[in-house]
Amino acid sequence: MKRTAFSDWPCSIARSVDLLGDWWTPLVLRDAYFGAKRFEHFQRSLGIGRNVLTQRLNRLVDEGLFERVPYQEHPPRDEYRLTDKGRDFMPVLMAMSAWGDRWLATDEGPPVTFTHKSCGHTTEARVVCSHCGEPIVYGSVRGSRRP
Amino acid sequence: MKRTAFSDWPCSIARSVDLLGDWWTPLVLRDAYFGAKRFEHFQRSLGIGRNVLTQRLNRLVDEGLFERVPYQEHPPRDEYRLTDKGRDFMPVLMAMSAWGDRWLATDEGPPVTFTHKSCGHTTEARVVCSHCGEPIVYGSVRGSRRP
Repeated sequence: MKRTAFSDWPCSIARSVDLLGDWWTPLVLRDAYFGAKRFEHFQRSLGIGRNVLTQRLNRLVDEGLFERVPYQEHPPRDEYRLTDKGRDFMPVLMAMSAWGDRWLATDEGPPVTFTHKSCGHTTEARVVCSHCGEPIVYGSVRGSRRP
Repeated sequence: MKRTAFSDWPCSIARSVDLLGDWWTPLVLRDAYFGAKRFEHFQRSLGIGRNVLTQRLNRLVDEGLFERVPYQEHPPRDEYRLTDKGRDFMPVLMAMSAWGDRWLATDEGPPVTFTHKSCGHTTEARVVCSHCGEPIVYGSVRGSRRP
């Protein structure tokens, strides 16, 4: 099924969505952030078909979020390591997770809690302005298209 | 086409992805954040088929990110207004946009720049710890599943 490609739109959201706008890709990344590296790890965690997983991993390699690194010669096997580009997406998923905790959690509360290792406290991701450090919220920013 | 539903997984990323894991939904929200309210606004901006747009808007209403509000009686017409839940997702897209600016921009630079109205400066979204305010980056958090 061919769908509209947003990779050329003049919008970084559209370009990111083009890469991530599919159910599995963000979950493959989630597992990578928590240590998964090998095909079997991802498959066990996600219960995903081998074909679909292969497609998603290949796409993430092609886009430069993972690199393939051999870990065994006989038979040859590669693992998938996050690149700097792939690691740098982790905060986006943390922001998404915090939103889900606020709005999609059941009565039992958030399913996973996070500890910020450097300060030692329970944390939730907050999105702030790179200049003043205050929260970025709806209505607080104005966008300008490049001339 | 029926796909796996992640809405019941014990993971806020999976639950969010279930809602947003499709090309158009994040872009419909993007347009809403920048003022779109009416069916025709979204359609003009996105060049999207009426059926697909209707499905996405209905889903966003069902999930509580938009509410329908009548703006005309003859013929009856509704517009789509962001709820608190819908507005609260905006920082997630800002974090995604900042990542796209860093990694997907062309030589011309980011296609859109943002100004943080309250401080008046050019801003990019940064994801930080709610406790200490330091950046959340790959490797800096530990997740614990609820017992």
